[in-house]
Amino acid sequence: MKDLSVLTLVIGNKRYSTWSLRPWILLKEFGVPFEEIVIPLYREDSKSALLTHSPAGKVPILHDGEASVWDSLAIIEYVADLYPDLVIWPRKRETRAHARALACEMHSGFAALRSECSMNFGRAPRPISLTETARADAARIDAAWRDALARYGGPFLSGQFSAADAMFAPVVQRFDAYMIPVSEESQRYMDAIKSLASWKEWSLSAKSEKWRLPQYERD
Amino acid sequence: MKDLSVLTLVIGNKRYSTWSLRPWILLKEFGVPFEEIVIPLYREDSKSALLTHSPAGKVPILHDGEASVWDSLAIIEYVADLYPDLVIWPRKRETRAHARALACEMHSGFAALRSECSMNFGRAPRPISLTETARADAARIDAAWRDALARYGGPFLSGQFSAADAMFAPVVQRFDAYMIPVSEESQRYMDAIKSLASWKEWSLSAKSEKWRLPQYERD
Repeated sequence: MKDLSVLTLVIGNKRYSTWSLRPWILLKEFGVPFEEIVIPLYREDSKSALLTHSPAGKVPILHDGEASVWDSLAIIEYVADLYPDLVIWPRKRETRAHARALACEMHSGFAALRSECSMNFGRAPRPISLTETARADAARIDAAWRDALARYGGPFLSGQFSAADAMFAPVVQRFDAYMIPVSEESQRYMDAIKSLASWKEWSLSAKSEKWRLPQYERD
Repeated sequence: MKDLSVLTLVIGNKRYSTWSLRPWILLKEFGVPFEEIVIPLYREDSKSALLTHSPAGKVPILHDGEASVWDSLAIIEYVADLYPDLVIWPRKRETRAHARALACEMHSGFAALRSECSMNFGRAPRPISLTETARADAARIDAAWRDALARYGGPFLSGQFSAADAMFAPVVQRFDAYMIPVSEESQRYMDAIKSLASWKEWSLSAKSEKWRLPQYERD
Protein backbone atom coordinates (compact mmCIF):
# COMPACT_ATOMS: atom_id res chain seq x y z
CA MET A 1 0.00 0.00 0.00
CA LYS A 2 1.18 3.49 -0.71
CA ASP A 3 1.05 6.79 1.12
CA LEU A 4 -2.65 7.62 1.16
CA SER A 5 -2.58 11.35 0.66
CA VAL A 6 -1.11 12.12 -2.74
CA LEU A 7 -3.57 11.19 -5.51
CA THR A 8 -5.12 14.14 -7.34
CA LEU A 9 -7.85 13.62 -9.92
CA VAL A 10 -8.42 16.40 -12.45
CA ILE A 11 -11.95 16.29 -13.87
CA GLY A 12 -14.39 18.34 -15.94
CA ASN A 13 -17.93 19.56 -15.25
CA LYS A 14 -19.76 16.98 -13.16
CA ARG A 15 -22.99 17.78 -14.99
CA TYR A 16 -21.59 16.59 -18.32
CA SER A 17 -18.20 14.88 -18.13
CA THR A 18 -18.69 11.14 -18.53
CA TRP A 19 -14.98 10.36 -18.69
CA SER A 20 -14.50 12.17 -15.38
CA LEU A 21 -17.29 10.27 -13.62
CA ARG A 22 -15.74 6.88 -14.41
CA PRO A 23 -12.53 7.00 -12.34
CA TRP A 24 -14.15 9.31 -9.77
CA ILE A 25 -16.92 6.84 -8.88
CA LEU A 26 -14.39 4.00 -8.81
CA LEU A 27 -12.10 5.82 -6.39
CA LYS A 28 -15.06 6.74 -4.15
CA GLU A 29 -16.60 3.26 -4.14
CA PHE A 30 -13.29 1.65 -3.20
CA GLY A 31 -12.56 4.26 -0.55
CA VAL A 32 -9.35 5.47 -2.15
CA PRO A 33 -8.58 8.98 -0.85
CA PHE A 34 -7.90 11.66 -3.44
CA GLU A 35 -7.97 15.38 -4.00
CA GLU A 36 -10.19 16.67 -6.77
CA ILE A 37 -9.63 19.56 -9.18
CA VAL A 38 -12.56 20.58 -11.41
CA ILE A 39 -11.79 22.40 -14.66
CA PRO A 40 -14.90 23.75 -16.40
CA LEU A 41 -14.73 22.63 -20.04
CA TYR A 42 -15.19 24.55 -23.29
CA ARG A 43 -14.29 27.94 -21.90
CA GLU A 44 -11.64 30.19 -23.31
CA ASP A 45 -9.12 29.15 -20.67
CA SER A 46 -10.06 25.45 -20.48
CA LYS A 47 -7.49 24.11 -22.92
CA SER A 48 -4.57 25.99 -21.39
CA ALA A 49 -5.64 24.86 -17.92
CA LEU A 50 -5.82 21.24 -19.11
CA LEU A 51 -2.45 21.42 -20.82
CA THR A 52 -0.81 22.34 -17.53
CA HIS A 53 -1.97 18.92 -16.31
CA SER A 54 -1.39 16.69 -19.36
CA PRO A 55 -0.09 17.04 -22.94
CA ALA A 56 -3.17 15.14 -24.16
CA GLY A 57 -5.24 18.14 -23.02
CA LYS A 58 -8.22 16.10 -21.85
CA VAL A 59 -9.89 15.10 -18.60
CA PRO A 60 -9.57 13.03 -16.53
CA ILE A 61 -5.97 13.10 -15.37
CA LEU A 62 -4.61 11.44 -12.25
CA HIS A 63 -1.50 12.83 -10.59
CA ASP A 64 0.45 10.68 -8.17
CA GLY A 65 3.61 12.52 -7.25
CA GLU A 66 5.65 12.70 -10.45
CA ALA A 67 3.45 10.19 -12.27
CA SER A 68 0.61 11.46 -14.44
CA VAL A 69 -2.01 9.22 -16.05
CA TRP A 70 -4.30 10.78 -18.64
CA ASP A 71 -7.09 8.41 -19.61
CA SER A 72 -10.07 7.09 -17.64
CA LEU A 73 -9.35 3.39 -18.16
CA ALA A 74 -5.59 3.82 -17.70
CA ILE A 75 -6.34 5.60 -14.41
CA ILE A 76 -8.49 2.68 -13.30
CA GLU A 77 -5.73 0.20 -14.19
CA TYR A 78 -3.21 2.37 -12.35
CA VAL A 79 -5.32 2.44 -9.19
CA ALA A 80 -5.78 -1.35 -9.45
CA ASP A 81 -1.97 -1.62 -9.65
CA LEU A 82 -1.48 0.69 -6.65
CA TYR A 83 -3.99 -1.13 -4.46
CA PRO A 84 -3.77 -4.84 -5.27
CA ASP A 85 -5.84 -5.68 -2.17
CA LEU A 86 -8.89 -3.90 -3.58
CA VAL A 87 -10.98 -6.02 -5.94
CA ILE A 88 -11.17 -3.37 -8.63
CA TRP A 89 -11.17 -6.13 -11.26
CA PRO A 90 -12.68 -9.51 -10.32
CA ARG A 91 -10.25 -12.06 -8.86
CA LYS A 92 -11.23 -14.95 -11.13
CA ARG A 93 -9.45 -14.77 -14.47
CA GLU A 94 -12.48 -15.46 -16.66
CA THR A 95 -14.67 -13.01 -14.76
CA ARG A 96 -11.91 -10.42 -14.96
CA ALA A 97 -11.61 -10.97 -18.72
CA HIS A 98 -15.36 -10.49 -19.07
CA ALA A 99 -15.29 -7.29 -17.00
CA ARG A 100 -12.38 -5.92 -19.03
CA ALA A 101 -14.11 -6.73 -22.32
CA LEU A 102 -17.22 -4.85 -21.13
CA ALA A 103 -15.13 -1.91 -19.91
CA CYS A 104 -13.17 -1.78 -23.17
CA GLU A 105 -16.28 -2.06 -25.34
CA MET A 106 -17.62 1.00 -23.51
CA HIS A 107 -14.26 2.78 -23.73
CA SER A 108 -14.03 2.67 -27.51
CA GLY A 109 -17.63 2.21 -28.60
CA PHE A 110 -21.23 3.43 -28.71
CA ALA A 111 -20.32 6.68 -30.49
CA ALA A 112 -23.87 7.34 -31.73
CA LEU A 113 -25.50 6.94 -28.33
CA ARG A 114 -22.79 9.08 -26.74
CA SER A 115 -23.18 11.87 -29.24
CA GLU A 116 -27.01 11.88 -29.31
CA CYS A 117 -27.52 11.51 -25.57
CA SER A 118 -25.01 13.65 -23.69
CA MET A 119 -24.81 12.81 -20.03
CA ASN A 120 -26.63 15.60 -18.23
CA PHE A 121 -27.31 15.33 -14.51
CA GLY A 122 -29.54 18.40 -14.65
CA ARG A 123 -31.92 17.14 -17.33
CA ALA A 124 -35.51 16.42 -16.30
CA PRO A 125 -36.12 12.94 -17.75
CA ARG A 126 -37.86 13.08 -21.11
CA PRO A 127 -37.54 11.02 -24.29
CA ILE A 128 -35.95 12.05 -27.57
CA SER A 129 -35.93 10.44 -30.96
CA LEU A 130 -32.78 8.49 -31.67
CA THR A 131 -31.12 7.36 -34.90
CA GLU A 132 -31.20 3.67 -35.67
CA THR A 133 -27.48 3.43 -34.83
CA ALA A 134 -28.00 4.94 -31.38
CA ARG A 135 -30.92 2.58 -30.76
CA ALA A 136 -28.69 -0.34 -31.74
CA ASP A 137 -26.04 0.93 -29.28
CA ALA A 138 -28.63 1.05 -26.49
CA ALA A 139 -29.90 -2.44 -27.37
CA ARG A 140 -26.38 -3.87 -27.35
CA ILE A 141 -25.68 -2.33 -23.92
CA ASP A 142 -28.97 -3.69 -22.56
CA ALA A 143 -28.08 -7.17 -23.89
CA ALA A 144 -24.52 -7.01 -22.53
CA TRP A 145 -25.81 -5.97 -19.10
CA ARG A 146 -28.46 -8.70 -19.02
CA ASP A 147 -25.91 -11.33 -20.03
CA ALA A 148 -23.43 -10.23 -17.33
CA LEU A 149 -26.12 -9.96 -14.64
CA ALA A 150 -27.38 -13.47 -15.44
CA ARG A 151 -23.86 -14.89 -15.63
CA TYR A 152 -22.60 -13.51 -12.30
CA GLY A 153 -25.86 -13.08 -10.41
CA GLY A 154 -25.87 -9.28 -10.03
CA PRO A 155 -26.50 -6.79 -8.58
CA PHE A 156 -23.46 -5.47 -10.52
CA LEU A 157 -21.90 -6.59 -13.81
CA SER A 158 -19.38 -8.91 -12.18
CA GLY A 159 -21.47 -9.64 -9.10
CA GLN A 160 -19.77 -7.11 -6.81
CA PHE A 161 -19.12 -3.53 -7.94
CA SER A 162 -16.05 -3.44 -10.20
CA ALA A 163 -14.32 -1.29 -12.79
CA ALA A 164 -16.83 -2.44 -15.42
CA ASP A 165 -19.63 -0.70 -13.48
CA ALA A 166 -17.57 2.47 -13.17
CA MET A 167 -17.16 2.51 -16.95
CA PHE A 168 -20.92 2.15 -17.55
CA ALA A 169 -22.10 4.58 -14.85
CA PRO A 170 -22.55 7.47 -17.32
CA VAL A 171 -24.80 5.27 -19.46
CA VAL A 172 -27.10 4.76 -16.48
CA GLN A 173 -27.56 8.52 -16.35
CA ARG A 174 -28.20 8.71 -20.09
CA PHE A 175 -30.77 5.91 -20.10
CA ASP A 176 -32.55 7.71 -17.27
CA ALA A 177 -32.35 11.24 -18.62
CA TYR A 178 -33.54 10.29 -22.12
CA MET A 179 -35.97 7.63 -20.89
CA ILE A 180 -34.46 4.91 -23.08
CA PRO A 181 -36.40 1.70 -22.49
CA VAL A 182 -34.41 -1.26 -21.15
CA SER A 183 -35.15 -4.74 -19.82
CA GLU A 184 -36.30 -5.23 -16.23
CA GLU A 185 -32.94 -6.76 -15.36
CA SER A 186 -31.11 -3.70 -16.65
CA GLN A 187 -33.56 -1.42 -14.84
CA ARG A 188 -32.69 -3.19 -11.57
CA TYR A 189 -29.02 -2.78 -12.40
CA MET A 190 -29.53 0.95 -12.96
CA ASP A 191 -31.30 1.18 -9.61
CA ALA A 192 -28.31 -0.53 -7.96
CA ILE A 193 -25.92 2.00 -9.48
CA LYS A 194 -28.15 4.92 -8.48
CA SER A 195 -28.26 3.60 -4.91
CA LEU A 196 -24.49 3.95 -4.48
CA ALA A 197 -23.43 6.68 -2.06
CA SER A 198 -20.81 7.76 -4.60
CA TRP A 199 -23.49 8.19 -7.28
CA LYS A 200 -25.59 10.35 -4.97
CA GLU A 201 -22.61 12.49 -4.04
CA TRP A 202 -21.66 13.11 -7.70
CA SER A 203 -25.28 13.75 -8.64
CA LEU A 204 -25.82 16.38 -5.92
CA SER A 205 -22.59 18.08 -6.76
CA ALA A 206 -23.38 18.03 -10.51
CA LYS A 207 -26.81 19.56 -9.96
CA SER A 208 -25.31 22.42 -7.98
CA GLU A 209 -22.98 23.44 -10.80
CA LYS A 210 -23.84 26.74 -12.49
CA TRP A 211 -21.99 26.16 -15.79
CA ARG A 212 -24.14 25.39 -18.84
CA LEU A 213 -22.91 24.12 -22.20
CA PRO A 214 -25.63 24.50 -24.87
CA GLN A 215 -24.17 21.63 -26.97
CA TYR A 216 -25.01 19.25 -24.11
CA GLU A 217 -28.46 20.67 -23.31
CA ARG A 218 -30.66 18.88 -25.79
CA ASP A 219 -34.42 19.43 -25.91
CA MET B 1 1.77 -21.03 -17.81
CA LYS B 2 -1.20 -22.58 -19.52
CA ASP B 3 -1.65 -25.22 -22.17
CA LEU B 4 -0.14 -23.64 -25.25
CA SER B 5 -2.47 -24.85 -27.94
CA VAL B 6 -5.92 -23.44 -27.32
CA LEU B 7 -5.96 -19.70 -28.10
CA THR B 8 -7.93 -18.76 -31.22
CA LEU B 9 -7.96 -15.19 -32.51
CA VAL B 10 -10.82 -14.17 -34.79
CA ILE B 11 -9.86 -11.23 -37.00
CA GLY B 12 -11.06 -9.25 -40.02
CA ASN B 13 -9.38 -8.43 -43.33
CA LYS B 14 -5.65 -7.92 -42.78
CA ARG B 15 -5.62 -5.21 -45.44
CA TYR B 16 -7.96 -2.98 -43.41
CA SER B 17 -8.71 -4.19 -39.89
CA THR B 18 -6.75 -2.06 -37.43
CA TRP B 19 -8.39 -3.58 -34.36
CA SER B 20 -7.37 -7.05 -35.57
CA LEU B 21 -3.74 -6.09 -36.14
CA ARG B 22 -3.28 -4.89 -32.54
CA PRO B 23 -3.65 -8.16 -30.60
CA TRP B 24 -2.27 -10.18 -33.55
CA ILE B 25 1.06 -8.33 -33.63
CA LEU B 26 1.26 -8.54 -29.83
CA LEU B 27 0.75 -12.31 -29.78
CA LYS B 28 3.30 -12.78 -32.58
CA GLU B 29 5.96 -10.52 -31.04
CA PHE B 30 5.69 -12.29 -27.69
CA GLY B 31 5.72 -15.73 -29.29
CA VAL B 32 2.32 -16.73 -27.94
CA PRO B 33 0.95 -19.56 -30.11
CA PHE B 34 -2.56 -19.13 -31.48
CA GLU B 35 -4.83 -20.25 -34.25
CA GLU B 36 -6.23 -17.57 -36.52
CA ILE B 37 -9.65 -17.27 -38.14
CA VAL B 38 -10.14 -14.51 -40.72
CA ILE B 39 -13.68 -13.28 -41.36
CA PRO B 40 -13.94 -10.91 -44.34
CA LEU B 41 -15.88 -7.84 -43.19
CA TYR B 42 -18.84 -6.00 -44.73
CA ARG B 43 -20.15 -8.94 -46.72
CA GLU B 44 -23.65 -10.25 -46.54
CA ASP B 45 -22.66 -13.08 -44.21
CA SER B 46 -20.09 -11.19 -42.12
CA LYS B 47 -22.38 -10.17 -39.27
CA SER B 48 -23.86 -13.62 -38.78
CA ALA B 49 -20.36 -15.15 -38.86
CA LEU B 50 -19.18 -12.64 -36.24
CA LEU B 51 -22.20 -13.24 -34.02
CA THR B 52 -21.32 -16.93 -33.80
CA HIS B 53 -18.10 -15.77 -32.09
CA SER B 54 -19.28 -12.89 -29.91
CA PRO B 55 -22.53 -11.08 -29.07
CA ALA B 56 -20.75 -7.76 -29.67
CA GLY B 57 -20.47 -8.77 -33.33
CA LYS B 58 -17.07 -7.21 -33.88
CA VAL B 59 -13.49 -8.32 -34.45
CA PRO B 60 -11.16 -9.15 -32.82
CA ILE B 61 -12.32 -11.93 -30.53
CA LEU B 62 -10.06 -14.26 -28.58
CA HIS B 63 -11.31 -17.71 -27.62
CA ASP B 64 -9.58 -19.62 -24.86
CA GLY B 65 -11.58 -22.75 -24.18
CA GLU B 66 -14.88 -21.52 -22.74
CA ALA B 67 -13.64 -17.96 -22.26
CA SER B 68 -14.26 -15.41 -24.97
CA VAL B 69 -12.79 -11.89 -24.97
CA TRP B 70 -14.14 -9.43 -27.51
CA ASP B 71 -12.10 -6.24 -27.56
CA SER B 72 -8.52 -5.57 -28.71
CA LEU B 73 -7.31 -4.02 -25.45
CA ALA B 74 -9.19 -6.53 -23.28
CA ILE B 75 -7.53 -9.32 -25.29
CA ILE B 76 -4.12 -7.78 -24.64
CA GLU B 77 -4.85 -7.54 -20.90
CA TYR B 78 -6.08 -11.15 -20.93
CA VAL B 79 -2.89 -12.39 -22.57
CA ALA B 80 -0.84 -10.38 -20.06
CA ASP B 81 -2.83 -12.12 -17.31
CA LEU B 82 -2.28 -15.57 -18.87
CA TYR B 83 1.46 -15.10 -19.32
CA PRO B 84 2.75 -13.08 -16.38
CA ASP B 85 6.35 -13.91 -17.33
CA LEU B 86 6.05 -12.02 -20.61
CA VAL B 87 6.69 -8.27 -20.30
CA ILE B 88 3.59 -7.29 -22.23
CA TRP B 89 3.27 -4.19 -20.04
CA PRO B 90 6.48 -2.68 -18.61
CA ARG B 91 7.54 -3.97 -15.18
CA LYS B 92 8.06 -0.56 -13.56
CA ARG B 93 4.78 0.90 -12.29
CA GLU B 94 5.26 4.41 -13.69
CA THR B 95 6.41 3.12 -17.08
CA ARG B 96 3.47 0.74 -17.13
CA ALA B 97 1.07 3.58 -16.32
CA HIS B 98 2.52 5.64 -19.15
CA ALA B 99 2.21 2.71 -21.59
CA ARG B 100 -1.39 2.12 -20.54
CA ALA B 101 -2.28 5.80 -20.92
CA LEU B 102 -0.84 5.77 -24.46
CA ALA B 103 -2.66 2.53 -25.29
CA CYS B 104 -5.94 3.86 -23.89
CA GLU B 105 -5.62 7.23 -25.63
CA MET B 106 -5.32 5.29 -28.90
CA HIS B 107 -8.14 2.93 -27.96
CA SER B 108 -10.74 5.66 -27.49
CA GLY B 109 -9.35 8.56 -29.50
CA PHE B 110 -8.20 10.03 -32.81
CA ALA B 111 -11.56 9.50 -34.50
CA ALA B 112 -10.89 12.03 -37.29
CA LEU B 113 -7.57 10.53 -38.29
CA ARG B 114 -9.03 7.04 -38.15
CA SER B 115 -11.98 7.91 -40.33
CA GLU B 116 -10.04 9.97 -42.90
CA CYS B 117 -7.05 7.62 -43.19
CA SER B 118 -8.22 4.03 -43.20
CA MET B 119 -5.43 1.57 -42.67
CA ASN B 120 -4.72 0.02 -46.07
CA PHE B 121 -1.75 -2.26 -46.54
CA GLY B 122 -2.30 -2.26 -50.30
CA ARG B 123 -2.19 1.50 -50.79
CA ALA B 124 0.76 2.93 -52.73
CA PRO B 125 1.93 5.77 -50.47
CA ARG B 126 0.51 9.12 -51.54
CA PRO B 127 -0.69 12.16 -49.61
CA ILE B 128 -4.27 13.31 -49.13
CA SER B 129 -5.70 16.52 -47.73
CA LEU B 130 -6.81 16.18 -44.12
CA THR B 131 -9.24 18.16 -41.98
CA GLU B 132 -7.77 20.33 -39.25
CA THR B 133 -9.03 17.85 -36.65
CA ALA B 134 -7.25 14.93 -38.31
CA ARG B 135 -4.07 16.99 -38.57
CA ALA B 136 -4.33 17.76 -34.86
CA ASP B 137 -4.74 14.03 -34.16
CA ALA B 138 -1.58 13.27 -36.13
CA ALA B 139 0.33 16.05 -34.36
CA ARG B 140 -0.75 14.77 -30.96
CA ILE B 141 0.38 11.24 -31.82
CA ASP B 142 3.72 12.53 -33.09
CA ALA B 143 4.20 14.50 -29.85
CA ALA B 144 3.17 11.55 -27.66
CA TRP B 145 5.59 9.25 -29.49
CA ARG B 146 8.47 11.73 -29.24
CA ASP B 147 7.85 12.23 -25.55
CA ALA B 148 7.79 8.48 -24.86
CA LEU B 149 10.86 7.79 -27.02
CA ALA B 150 12.83 10.52 -25.23
CA ARG B 151 11.60 9.39 -21.81
CA TYR B 152 12.45 5.70 -22.18
CA GLY B 153 15.22 5.85 -24.80
CA GLY B 154 13.45 3.95 -27.64
CA PRO B 155 13.44 2.18 -29.97
CA PHE B 156 9.85 1.48 -28.80
CA LEU B 157 7.43 3.55 -26.75
CA SER B 158 8.41 1.98 -23.42
CA GLY B 159 11.96 1.11 -24.46
CA GLN B 160 11.29 -2.54 -25.33
CA PHE B 161 8.29 -3.54 -27.47
CA SER B 162 5.12 -3.53 -25.35
CA ALA B 163 1.34 -3.43 -25.63
CA ALA B 164 1.52 0.33 -26.31
CA ASP B 165 3.35 -0.35 -29.58
CA ALA B 166 0.83 -3.00 -30.57
CA MET B 167 -1.95 -0.42 -30.09
CA PHE B 168 -0.20 2.15 -32.32
CA ALA B 169 0.95 -0.25 -35.06
CA PRO B 170 -1.99 0.60 -37.36
CA VAL B 171 -1.09 4.30 -37.12
CA VAL B 172 2.38 3.52 -38.45
CA GLN B 173 0.74 2.08 -41.55
CA ARG B 174 -1.54 5.12 -41.91
CA PHE B 175 1.26 7.66 -41.55
CA ASP B 176 3.16 5.75 -44.25
CA ALA B 177 0.27 5.15 -46.64
CA TYR B 178 -0.96 8.76 -46.53
CA MET B 179 2.55 10.27 -46.26
CA ILE B 180 1.73 12.20 -43.12
CA PRO B 181 4.82 14.15 -42.07
CA VAL B 182 6.23 13.36 -38.62
CA SER B 183 9.35 14.21 -36.63
CA GLU B 184 12.62 12.37 -37.24
CA GLU B 185 12.25 10.59 -33.92
CA SER B 186 8.80 9.29 -34.89
CA GLN B 187 10.11 8.29 -38.31
CA ARG B 188 12.77 6.16 -36.62
CA TYR B 189 10.09 4.65 -34.41
CA MET B 190 8.01 3.78 -37.47
CA ASP B 191 11.07 2.14 -39.02
CA ALA B 192 11.52 0.07 -35.85
CA ILE B 193 7.90 -1.14 -36.04
CA LYS B 194 8.21 -1.92 -39.75
CA SER B 195 11.36 -3.95 -39.06
CA LEU B 196 9.50 -6.38 -36.83
CA ALA B 197 9.13 -9.88 -38.26
CA SER B 198 5.49 -9.84 -37.17
CA TRP B 199 4.86 -6.62 -39.13
CA LYS B 200 6.36 -8.13 -42.27
CA GLU B 201 4.30 -11.28 -41.90
CA TRP B 202 1.03 -9.33 -41.51
CA SER B 203 1.95 -7.00 -44.36
CA LEU B 204 2.67 -9.82 -46.82
CA SER B 205 -0.47 -11.61 -45.87
CA ALA B 206 -2.55 -8.39 -46.14
CA LYS B 207 -1.18 -7.64 -49.60
CA SER B 208 -2.13 -11.10 -50.83
CA GLU B 209 -5.80 -10.68 -49.86
CA LYS B 210 -8.20 -10.35 -52.78
CA TRP B 211 -11.08 -8.66 -50.91
CA ARG B 212 -11.61 -4.93 -51.61
CA LEU B 213 -13.85 -2.57 -49.66
CA PRO B 214 -14.42 0.69 -51.58
CA GLN B 215 -15.07 2.66 -48.38
CA TYR B 216 -11.47 1.98 -47.34
CA GLU B 217 -9.88 2.61 -50.73
CA ARG B 218 -9.44 6.36 -50.75
CA ASP B 219 -7.82 8.20 -53.69
